[in-house]
Amino acid sequence: LSGVRAAVLEAFEKPLEIRTYPEPNELAPGEALISVEIAGICGTDVHLWLGQLAIPLPNIMGHESAGRIERLGAGVERDWRGEPLAIGDRVTWASSIACGECFYCRVKRQPTRCLTRKAYGISYRASDAPHLRGGYAEKILLRAGSAIFRIPDTVPSEALIGAGCALTTTIHASERAPLEWGETVVVQGTGPVGLAAIAVARVAGAGKIVAIGGPKLRLGLAREFGANVLIDIAELPGIEARRDAVFEAVGPYGADQVIECVGHPDAVNEGILLCRDGGQFVVLGQYADAGNISFNPHTITRKQLRVIGSWGFEPRHVDRAIRLLERDAGLSEKFARGITHRFPLARADEALQTARNLTGGKTVILPNEKADAR
Amino acid sequence: LSGVRAAVLEAFEKPLEIRTYPEPNELAPGEALISVEIAGICGTDVHLWLGQLAIPLPNIMGHESAGRIERLGAGVERDWRGEPLAIGDRVTWASSIACGECFYCRVKRQPTRCLTRKAYGISYRASDAPHLRGGYAEKILLRAGSAIFRIPDTVPSEALIGAGCALTTTIHASERAPLEWGETVVVQGTGPVGLAAIAVARVAGAGKIVAIGGPKLRLGLAREFGANVLIDIAELPGIEARRDAVFEAVGPYGADQVIECVGHPDAVNEGILLCRDGGQFVVLGQYADAGNISFNPHTITRKQLRVIGSWGFEPRHVDRAIRLLERDAGLSEKFARGITHRFPLARADEALQTARNLTGGKTVILPNEKADAR
Amino acid sequence: LSGVRAAVLEAFEKPLEIRTYPEPNELAPGEALISVEIAGICGTDVHLWLGQLAIPLPNIMGHESAGRIERLGAGVERDWRGEPLAIGDRVTWASSIACGECFYCRVKRQPTRCLTRKAYGISYRASDAPHLRGGYAEKILLRAGSAIFRIPDTVPSEALIGAGCALTTTIHASERAPLEWGETVVVQGTGPVGLAAIAVARVAGAGKIVAIGGPKLRLGLAREFGANVLIDIAELPGIEARRDAVFEAVGPYGADQVIECVGHPDAVNEGILLCRDGGQFVVLGQYADAGNISFNPHTITRKQLRVIGSWGFEPRHVDRAIRLLERDAGLSEKFARGITHRFPLARADEALQTARNLTGGKTVILPNEKADAR
Amino acid sequence: LSGVRAAVLEAFEKPLEIRTYPEPNELAPGEALISVEIAGICGTDVHLWLGQLAIPLPNIMGHESAGRIERLGAGVERDWRGEPLAIGDRVTWASSIACGECFYCRVKRQPTRCLTRKAYGISYRASDAPHLRGGYAEKILLRAGSAIFRIPDTVPSEALIGAGCALTTTIHASERAPLEWGETVVVQGTGPVGLAAIAVARVAGAGKIVAIGGPKLRLGLAREFGANVLIDIAELPGIEARRDAVFEAVGPYGADQVIECVGHPDAVNEGILLCRDGGQFVVLGQYADAGNISFNPHTITRKQLRVIGSWGFEPRHVDRAIRLLERDAGLSEKFARGITHRFPLARADEALQTARNLTGGKTVILPNEKADAR
Repeated sequence: LSGVRAAVLEAFEKPLEIRTYPEPNELAPGEALISVEIAGICGTDVHLWLGQLAIPLPNIMGHESAGRIERLGAGVERDWRGEPLAIGDRVTWASSIACGECFYCRVKRQPTRCLTRKAYGISYRASDAPHLRGGYAEKILLRAGSAIFRIPDTVPSEALIGAGCALTTTIHASERAPLEWGETVVVQGTGPVGLAAIAVARVAGAGKIVAIGGPKLRLGLAREFGANVLIDIAELPGIEARRDAVFEAVGPYGADQVIECVGHPDAVNEGILLCRDGGQFVVLGQYADAGNISFNPHTITRKQLRVIGSWGFEPRHVDRAIRLLERDAGLSEKFARGITHRFPLARADEALQTARNLTGGKTVILPNEKADAR
Repeated sequence: LSGVRAAVLEAFEKPLEIRTYPEPNELAPGEALISVEIAGICGTDVHLWLGQLAIPLPNIMGHESAGRIERLGAGVERDWRGEPLAIGDRVTWASSIACGECFYCRVKRQPTRCLTRKAYGISYRASDAPHLRGGYAEKILLRAGSAIFRIPDTVPSEALIGAGCALTTTIHASERAPLEWGETVVVQGTGPVGLAAIAVARVAGAGKIVAIGGPKLRLGLAREFGANVLIDIAELPGIEARRDAVFEAVGPYGADQVIECVGHPDAVNEGILLCRDGGQFVVLGQYADAGNISFNPHTITRKQLRVIGSWGFEPRHVDRAIRLLERDAGLSEKFARGITHRFPLARADEALQTARNLTGGKTVILPNEKADAR
Repeated sequence: LSGVRAAVLEAFEKPLEIRTYPEPNELAPGEALISVEIAGICGTDVHLWLGQLAIPLPNIMGHESAGRIERLGAGVERDWRGEPLAIGDRVTWASSIACGECFYCRVKRQPTRCLTRKAYGISYRASDAPHLRGGYAEKILLRAGSAIFRIPDTVPSEALIGAGCALTTTIHASERAPLEWGETVVVQGTGPVGLAAIAVARVAGAGKIVAIGGPKLRLGLAREFGANVLIDIAELPGIEARRDAVFEAVGPYGADQVIECVGHPDAVNEGILLCRDGGQFVVLGQYADAGNISFNPHTITRKQLRVIGSWGFEPRHVDRAIRLLERDAGLSEKFARGITHRFPLARADEALQTARNLTGGKTVILPNEKADAR
Repeated sequence: LSGVRAAVLEAFEKPLEIRTYPEPNELAPGEALISVEIAGICGTDVHLWLGQLAIPLPNIMGHESAGRIERLGAGVERDWRGEPLAIGDRVTWASSIACGECFYCRVKRQPTRCLTRKAYGISYRASDAPHLRGGYAEKILLRAGSAIFRIPDTVPSEALIGAGCALTTTIHASERAPLEWGETVVVQGTGPVGLAAIAVARVAGAGKIVAIGGPKLRLGLAREFGANVLIDIAELPGIEARRDAVFEAVGPYGADQVIECVGHPDAVNEGILLCRDGGQFVVLGQYADAGNISFNPHTITRKQLRVIGSWGFEPRHVDRAIRLLERDAGLSEKFARGITHRFPLARADEALQTARNLTGGKTVILPNEKADAR
């Protein structure tokens, strides 16, 4: 028996190493062993690699993946939606498992803030059995209670992983800060989260979408995903100039909703500037703690704003993402086309470095692909 | 003819001067001339006096007042609610008039952000005819379009002005950030806005209300208005100690809703600390621009917060305030008892200085009272 | 001077008569005299003609119209949005004027339930000066306080009147019963309101739209406007068969939202049947009192429904309709193509009878067109 | 070993019989064996006894009960809130268990409409092992997954059972149809659900509560629970007279919210009549299918209503009920005083007949009480 190969982060900022772990024995009830077909490299993975978040080492990263069912533990007969599951089925899964029992899960129904939530590809130590808890590996062993989704035949895995956790995160945010159709939207940032926010705002009937970002390639994607007006930060490096451009597009008081998808904390002050009085400002990009800003809270009172935070996503949002891709083949194809670099598992470190330096597309690992990167 | 006397702010930080303006001639349609019975001194008036907000000078301050109708212009037959108006009726009025026609009034239905809103006691130059646009005067001339309210006989003027614009402002905020009955609330600050926020949270069925403030006298008022737990900032000067005390009271994750009624921008970071994940943080006290803070936006994303601003109030909220006082005689009496200092118009400057230095009650001017201050 | 010609309903179920009224003299402040370019015949007009609603006679009908400004009274310088108005401008207007002062306008902010609301083309007696209060006339005299909208050059009048009050009514309903994007929708009825409901649900991101109606021609329009699944009541005359077809389309528990746009009261029971537990049922088509049904209220409790009514529309919704047509040229064209019959004023009665018998398109009157009907 | 005695419904409309079931053997993981201290007789139990709902026979009724933990299965260490559980603890439990996996539980988060929900005291056949699934018994065996709540020492069991499922049901409804504090409320019916609705509306800050019901004794309770105005249906048997009385109390357009807690379907038409335009009508009492009414759906459109149904309750609502009683000793005492008749298990049938004929208080069974009824 050859074991299961995985790309492992053993030390921050060091190359990923290929390690082999034992094939899991008999599965416990509720478990599922998945042969990983594709694992997306999320921007968060780069932050993890840099050591900017506290995670256990060694670590098999990879929290947005899809694959085929290899074995099922007792009782795993249906997916999260109730559809039957069988060996060989193509599936994806919610990256996190909420406990379902804590204050946030039960009393406040905010499972994304579950007190003991753990995420595949982030929260598990690879040296602890059963080891296989991340997507950068030939196989992943899903725990009982995982939210597994059979992927409809019409949805390519590359569409789903091309959309990645950016889409599910954005869908959660759109639930917390609903857009009224016809409202104007500014999306700050044209990275994966920004593009997903544009796509969701377009689906939700935004009246006009202004995308602020760069470089040109990503602004082109922003237009494809539904942005009506593009603002290139390279061309308009000043906040006042960008504000003028936004106000020209959406009217002289600012946008009904501004969605921050940048990550740099400075974007928050600009976002508030771009939001009309009484509007909604969604702080979606501040996933990592990137430090403090100088901030004037008087603007929240005076502009009578709603500033909305949203963290991660629930299985419900994976469900909505899959259904969205299922019924919108065009959008599905756009997300799939967003994948520009593919690597076999052996070159996982190269994949990660590509993602780190990349500005124009998404990088994935194909852990069971023998071929070279395309 | 003797004219109408008013206390006038002629220069910032200078004593108010008593000036006499001509009695208004025939009233234009829609106008109302009111004999001012009582004018509250709001904390904002102190800021105005200090020159911290841009207002025209000279200025007759006083934006929370009540009085009796002396004359009515053509067409003023009913109050805002449709009740008949007659000479001699005791009335109050919304301090601001929204245009009803601008983007915020019409399209977005946010008249508190009306582009041309003007407020009695704040926005008018006393040297411009007809001069009488503030409450620190024997008479005030209300413009056509003012929202006038006949005060029910069972509601003393001192209850209404004791509550002041703090209550109407808080009612507006409670509409923007509704409390679900049973939720826990932290009110930061025990000034007039803080006490009103406690009163409104109590009416709305808050499960537990924690008041953070001081000094002792005001904490005692906080308890009377409905706070269950009092935290004296003099006794617990450290943020961690206050957080521990709050969490002991409301549970280990923080309060469902935190209402900032302090005004000092530092209160914002503490408020976010005291709010549970997924909770609401209402930024209500940052009326004046008191400068910037060092702020970490990551907390909004990670704690999945709703941060809600609210500005001023609409006539609807005056209506709700009056009805609340009308049906809750106990609350009405508490607000009335909050008035601890009364001055005749001649001593308006002394009144203002008293308010400025006061920590324990509310100061009012009784412009048509001949007696000395009680 | 030749006077202004109008088509007048003098007695229910009798032919419309052409009458001539005096040209208005000097306009009062706030008024506007419009040369009517196009007046839609709404299904309600047929009900009015049949005497099914209490209206004053004689009556110049026509509550969905557009035209060009001929004269403006003093003070009419800008349209509802604040855009400048000038002689010759192409405009439309909200059919109703709410008083802005009653309980519903002020306290409850429900101006569509204004206690003294009056609608052009419905509420005015043509024999009372100034007579010209309906769209079936060469000119209409708009009262002070009317919500006038300059029509953008890119929006043809036929698009706007083709959409008619069906679109604005539906937009109001979509505000009262917001759709979450991705939700499934059943629209009962494929008349003008049903088609508008389909269009709005499509804009709002409905996951799947099932249209129930007929005949074939209108089902074809339903598909063009965005319906994914068509159910022809001629082919499936039984409620059970339609329910089965709906459940096959949207899943076995029913649709997230059902919008009744039929008008016949029996549609209400079917709509409730088609709605999933916990879903929303919008009762939009019951504009006329068409009598009682046998109804089991237990279903509302047990299915845990939200049943939402919506009446008419506010100027805000005209604004949203115009903006929607402005940014969606395809939709605009579809509404314009919906107009299949055009008549000059002289043949207004023929136009009304055409609308009465029509099942496939919209009929309009072109009051200043000299040519024959096309 | 003597076994466990229970009062069993063996045939509809026949006397309850005392049967003895075997004491449960070793508990399975997650189970809990409770010694029943008190079991409320709900109005629904009378309907069950009459055979008006489809339930399996024989049946141990009793779905609102409290008791002491006798034994705990493996893994039952904490209650629903996370508080530790120990033998001897006084507890209550949610009457239903939702599957947590179906369309309604997962996708739509409406667990009260769970497709396989089962309720203690209703859904279980007493002849099937382990038999003990209802409250009319010395012991009840709770299934794994039950939502158990440790009762705070300050909350008497009689307060909790006196409130019964009426309170939790009402709390759920108040979540689906939130009251804005200050709004006027009409509660139709002064049975247990009506009184609970009054209590909850009072807590939520209702401006004025009108109770319609009878007889005098229950109207007196309505006043104690917070009703401001009482309408005795015996004194005002006509709908018009009641409408006039309501409008006199709440104003000439009707109440902001009407809550139907009657059960008779005719109450629905009256409720709609009493609701102002644009208001909320909560259909809460139509738990059993009591047949059809003649209903005019035009009123929903024209009055622009929201008609809200609500079914049962979730564990969250039990939590809110307990916390409410915990912090409001006065309310707690009122609910406890509502219990007017107590019977030992041996006289369970007499208890049920008492409840059936009772108009003035609540009847409970004390299954482990040896004494006679008090």
